[in-house]
Amino acid sequence: MSKSLPKRSEDYSLWYNELVKRAGLAENSPVRGCMVIKPYGYAIWEKMQRILDDMFKKTGHTNAYFPLFIPKSFFSKEASHVEGFAKECAVITHYRLKNAEDGSGVIVDPEAKLEEELIVRPTSETVIWNTYKGWIQSYRDLPLLINQWANVVRWEMRTRLFLRTSEFLWQEGHTAHATAEEAIAETEQMLEVYAEFAEKYMAVPVVRGIKSPNERFAGALETYCIEALMQDGKALQAGTSHFLGQNFAKAFDVKFATKEGGLEYVWGTSWGVSTRLMGALIMAHSDDEGLVLPPLLAPTQVVIVPVFFNETQLSQISEKAKQIKQALEARGISVKFDARDTQKPGWKFAEYELQGVPVRIAIGMRDLENGVAEVARRDTKTKTTLPLDNLDAQVADLLNDIQESIYQKAYQFRAENITKVDTYDEFKKVLDTKGGFVLAHWDGTPETEERIKEETKATIRCIALNAEPEEGTCILTGKPSARRVHFARAY
Amino acid sequence: MSKSLPKRSEDYSLWYNELVKRAGLAENSPVRGCMVIKPYGYAIWEKMQRILDDMFKKTGHTNAYFPLFIPKSFFSKEASHVEGFAKECAVITHYRLKNAEDGSGVIVDPEAKLEEELIVRPTSETVIWNTYKGWIQSYRDLPLLINQWANVVRWEMRTRLFLRTSEFLWQEGHTAHATAEEAIAETEQMLEVYAEFAEKYMAVPVVRGIKSPNERFAGALETYCIEALMQDGKALQAGTSHFLGQNFAKAFDVKFATKEGGLEYVWGTSWGVSTRLMGALIMAHSDDEGLVLPPLLAPTQVVIVPVFFNETQLSQISEKAKQIKQALEARGISVKFDARDTQKPGWKFAEYELQGVPVRIAIGMRDLENGVAEVARRDTKTKTTLPLDNLDAQVADLLNDIQESIYQKAYQFRAENITKVDTYDEFKKVLDTKGGFVLAHWDGTPETEERIKEETKATIRCIALNAEPEEGTCILTGKPSARRVHFARAY
Repeated sequence: MSKSLPKRSEDYSLWYNELVKRAGLAENSPVRGCMVIKPYGYAIWEKMQRILDDMFKKTGHTNAYFPLFIPKSFFSKEASHVEGFAKECAVITHYRLKNAEDGSGVIVDPEAKLEEELIVRPTSETVIWNTYKGWIQSYRDLPLLINQWANVVRWEMRTRLFLRTSEFLWQEGHTAHATAEEAIAETEQMLEVYAEFAEKYMAVPVVRGIKSPNERFAGALETYCIEALMQDGKALQAGTSHFLGQNFAKAFDVKFATKEGGLEYVWGTSWGVSTRLMGALIMAHSDDEGLVLPPLLAPTQVVIVPVFFNETQLSQISEKAKQIKQALEARGISVKFDARDTQKPGWKFAEYELQGVPVRIAIGMRDLENGVAEVARRDTKTKTTLPLDNLDAQVADLLNDIQESIYQKAYQFRAENITKVDTYDEFKKVLDTKGGFVLAHWDGTPETEERIKEETKATIRCIALNAEPEEGTCILTGKPSARRVHFARAY
Repeated sequence: MSKSLPKRSEDYSLWYNELVKRAGLAENSPVRGCMVIKPYGYAIWEKMQRILDDMFKKTGHTNAYFPLFIPKSFFSKEASHVEGFAKECAVITHYRLKNAEDGSGVIVDPEAKLEEELIVRPTSETVIWNTYKGWIQSYRDLPLLINQWANVVRWEMRTRLFLRTSEFLWQEGHTAHATAEEAIAETEQMLEVYAEFAEKYMAVPVVRGIKSPNERFAGALETYCIEALMQDGKALQAGTSHFLGQNFAKAFDVKFATKEGGLEYVWGTSWGVSTRLMGALIMAHSDDEGLVLPPLLAPTQVVIVPVFFNETQLSQISEKAKQIKQALEARGISVKFDARDTQKPGWKFAEYELQGVPVRIAIGMRDLENGVAEVARRDTKTKTTLPLDNLDAQVADLLNDIQESIYQKAYQFRAENITKVDTYDEFKKVLDTKGGFVLAHWDGTPETEERIKEETKATIRCIALNAEPEEGTCILTGKPSARRVHFARAY
């Protein structure tokens, strides 16, 4: 706490890394690319999990758990899936260690070699569809609506806390349906669940769209996504929902007896969000003083800091503070009363700013005499003096205000950072000066997308679901285009 | 559902396996020793998790997450730990697959060999204490009270669903303290949390005790445990809490500045329960008709089955059933109303018996006319006719009764299956005829314990915390002993 954070304007990337560590969210581990999620970071993730889990259950899903390991041969069963996932992965080849004969320590026992190597799951379509084969016989077994909370591993060479780590935590929904229409409806429903979660709870506005074929999930017919904009003008994919068609059903021979007596392959979806959302949450709102958390995801929503110079004062202030705490808690608000005498109020103010606690209430002796408290909101860094009477109701309103206001600020920022361009020069200029989403025409070919990516590092984030039809010409090739797509440089 | 379960009396082991599968709790996966936890089984596990997590938080713990992988060298740092855990484990040696040049499929890329092998965590002491080194500098950083919910892997040759699987889910608490006394108090507190959970929620009475040195956790100074008795007379270790002394602090060089200005090694504990609890829950209470679940852990506490012969009747019964459902739900009771017309009531009765739903309410037309319902409790298989007026209050009481009654039955069973013996012949006879806990004198040496185990397959489950001092002589060696210990054959 002694040193201030690097400034966003000077080094956004350093600012992010330092913020994540100093606010107690996560840190790197001695294991390449794996992170330790620290208690405060995990508390935020738990809130996310609880809310998402409730949303999944409300839409009819149940949780289950599938094995961490996948036999290597499973990956060969779905042709495009193996290309996408089996390459950079953790491979288990042995099941035993032993003491070295020369006493030099523990070594892998060469006699304990697996007949078939196992892969630590990078995603679970294969092992789940292999299981679904035993669960699905008839139309009465459908739809099958299952979610799993799990860890997955994708070997990454360049990692960043929360945004890209070799191991990460996520949920993966895997559903099976009797018709393509139902599966598509499920895919779209879950995209909307993600979008609602991002906007309502994370206070992060998102673009709902579909991926271009280049960016599609390996094994899907269509990938839907939500895309968010970070403060440095880069986009971040915050969640995906895939319509798998019958690809995995065919790969794992999952058929069902139809009502009409036929036998057909099942239609599938899968969808997931991960601890990457933590990165999005942090980067979307935080500032040079530290985290800014939307109240609905803040582990501590209100902190009360007493300002005192001796024990007697502390005891008088404490009495009032505890009443306030109780009244707030009765409203379902989480409150911390920090009465430590080992740290000064100013130090505490800075600490809770760093941690992004949405509301801070400071009470000194004069406040007590005047029947008021100083109430500071983290997002705008503004302070007001409020009467102690009815303080809980006012703070409850304030928390709602803050939630809304953080969203509006992010919305406003995004609005200012969506630029329509009609030429390739303009396109490159916008990317290099302000960044953000660049709405441009594209001829629809993977080749053009690839060349633009190579030349500008910008990718098509999505074709927005609400994109208006608009005739135009591709910024690179001049070929005709029916609508603009969202380009951006991205995390 | 068409075939009845094997009988406990004929083949307990087959009964258990079939029950786990048919009740939709879990099944084997194509990956050796790994299980799929099915939605109904996972729903019970989620209830367990939620309750335990609340208990951990009430005792001051927070959750965090540490890496799945542990560098091989970490295991060599604590001498006894490596003996206990590094042997049978999943070893990652490579980080990439590639297509075989002969087109035969995917193979491990020999060029992607890790410099140091990684072990999939069998337990996380090493990686966590390595992290704690960075988190603990001073007495002000203590106690550090952290829990992790995670999957772990211990390569098992012979596996059984829930009871012994290569991958399992668990929680592992890892705490650090300034003094041995505090660490021991924490160890004992968490044992009591586990015991309370087992008795109050799982309705399984447990013996609280400490392990003999032979059965101690690898790296601990003392292992506390709770031991439960299953219906076949075998014991099951349901949870352990370890006092680690300064072993891991020394292995990972974790010291703290004391209040007095000194520098000392930290004292540690670790404690865990796993999906093994599911096995204990199933085996402790269930019968030849299926699961018997204590209401506090049942995903569905009450099922309402309408008995009807046409649509009109169904609609009349439904109206009343929905009122009952609402009234029960208002009391926080989870209710399912099964109005399917594709299955007959008798079929549904059998299905919910198999699933262990604690209370079944059946309503037919005559019941409706008489203003009553047939209420059946799963545990005793008794039925009563209750007035519809005030049914919710009566059912709420009934659920409390059932919870208590299931516990009492298990308690009674255990009381009948604790036998004091004074000779080795008696000891062997009791083990071979009735099983259960056998209270016997032991001379306190590992050699005697080992010989008894070899000759009888019985192990010392624990030295009960409440064992009365009683002078006697070891059943095997005749040497003096100060108290009886709990022997049993165990899972």
